[in-house]
Amino acid sequence: MKTYTVITGASSGIGYETAKAFARRGKNLILTARREHRLTALKDELLQLHPTLEVIVKASDLSVPQNAHRFYAGLQGYPLETWVNNAGFGDYNSVARLDLAKIQEMLHLNIEALTILSSLFVRDYRNVVGSQLINVSSCGGYQLVPTAVSYCASKFYVSAFTEGLAWELKAQGSPLQAKVLAPAATETEFGKRASGQKIYVYDQHFTAYHSSQQMAEFLLALYDSDQTLGIVDRNHFQFSLCGPLLPCAQERVST
Amino acid sequence: MKTYTVITGASSGIGYETAKAFARRGKNLILTARREHRLTALKDELLQLHPTLEVIVKASDLSVPQNAHRFYAGLQGYPLETWVNNAGFGDYNSVARLDLAKIQEMLHLNIEALTILSSLFVRDYRNVVGSQLINVSSCGGYQLVPTAVSYCASKFYVSAFTEGLAWELKAQGSPLQAKVLAPAATETEFGKRASGQKIYVYDQHFTAYHSSQQMAEFLLALYDSDQTLGIVDRNHFQFSLCGPLLPCAQERVST
Repeated sequence: MKTYTVITGASSGIGYETAKAFARRGKNLILTARREHRLTALKDELLQLHPTLEVIVKASDLSVPQNAHRFYAGLQGYPLETWVNNAGFGDYNSVARLDLAKIQEMLHLNIEALTILSSLFVRDYRNVVGSQLINVSSCGGYQLVPTAVSYCASKFYVSAFTEGLAWELKAQGSPLQAKVLAPAATETEFGKRASGQKIYVYDQHFTAYHSSQQMAEFLLALYDSDQTLGIVDRNHFQFSLCGPLLPCAQERVST
Repeated sequence: MKTYTVITGASSGIGYETAKAFARRGKNLILTARREHRLTALKDELLQLHPTLEVIVKASDLSVPQNAHRFYAGLQGYPLETWVNNAGFGDYNSVARLDLAKIQEMLHLNIEALTILSSLFVRDYRNVVGSQLINVSSCGGYQLVPTAVSYCASKFYVSAFTEGLAWELKAQGSPLQAKVLAPAATETEFGKRASGQKIYVYDQHFTAYHSSQQMAEFLLALYDSDQTLGIVDRNHFQFSLCGPLLPCAQERVST
């Protein structure tokens, strides 16, 4: 049976390189992002390299929660194998200086859309052998960074939601694996969007960072592993695969 | 100068008892919740006991983000001293069985409204000596509980956002204190709402739990202290005051 790998935020950065990496594995792709022309260019590029693949592009702004529901509903009829929630953005500002319109949009995308899409995927695929959900968090979702507090908090949500889901699926004996990728600084459009600057040169802001190609390779290493978490150490920029890091109570709440 | 203590979710549970506790301290109150008749009954009760206090009630459904902006804007002209973001609810369900309409409402209230109100308060009061922001998280915001994953993740957000804000304010030398209260099981309407059951008897679900009166006392102990966190130990049901628990990077992101 023909199956598909869904990648959100595929128009640039880690999502773009992850699409290329899954294509090299011979995976059919369903790609989404706001910018349709970029998705179409990526589709053309992928089909030139891998003419037998099927690549479907669907432009959508997932920071509008209804669009997340609509995007998922539009995938009825495509059997899915892997879902990568990569779409997200950040913000570098003290809490006193937050642009709340930007922050609310960030919460809708980083948290709400990810929750909607994860839940719908789990509902449909929790009994399907070989299925995976990979949510892109951040090492800021395990360690707070002052001046990026609201962004880090949104990524703490992603880490906690996804690790909790991984525990839950294991307890249920589900074959669906839920995993978290936690990048440190990665050279993408992230810096520009988070800082609100037109030009953002990673060399001027970070002593070390990864390229999106490297991060996509790490994501694939996480995909190939049985571990729940793939995380970059912020100090040494080493990537490692490991079990969940957040404390988890053993007992269930009785309901 | 006459100042006010704002409490969200004041119609019942911890918010209701917190309103009474601040009233006993002689604090003028601004109370909000969805249920106006309950707020009015609480106001009457408070004014009988403390006739010299000013108690203002403003019904609002803060799970609608625009209402959070509107509620804050409506407080222009009232000098504030303390802000308690207590409004919130939970959900007991596996991720595969989430009622997404309920979960999206929960994210809007627990995360988005709290972020909007915290940010606006910090913007206006970060230089005001004696001002405090107390955000009600949960010990589920420090330790995941299977079957309450999305709720716990929303409270990881609250813990991370508020601890990060506390670090940021200290680094800026701000006199505004940001604090987190992390209750364990507390007998309120929480169980009913989280389980979706009409009757929820805490004795049947928990071997130990606090009353809302006890939790309001703990909140006041946190208010009186210089610590960032007041947390209940889930195993022994002991309350303790301590510094922030989440890892925090020392360096700032250069922007």
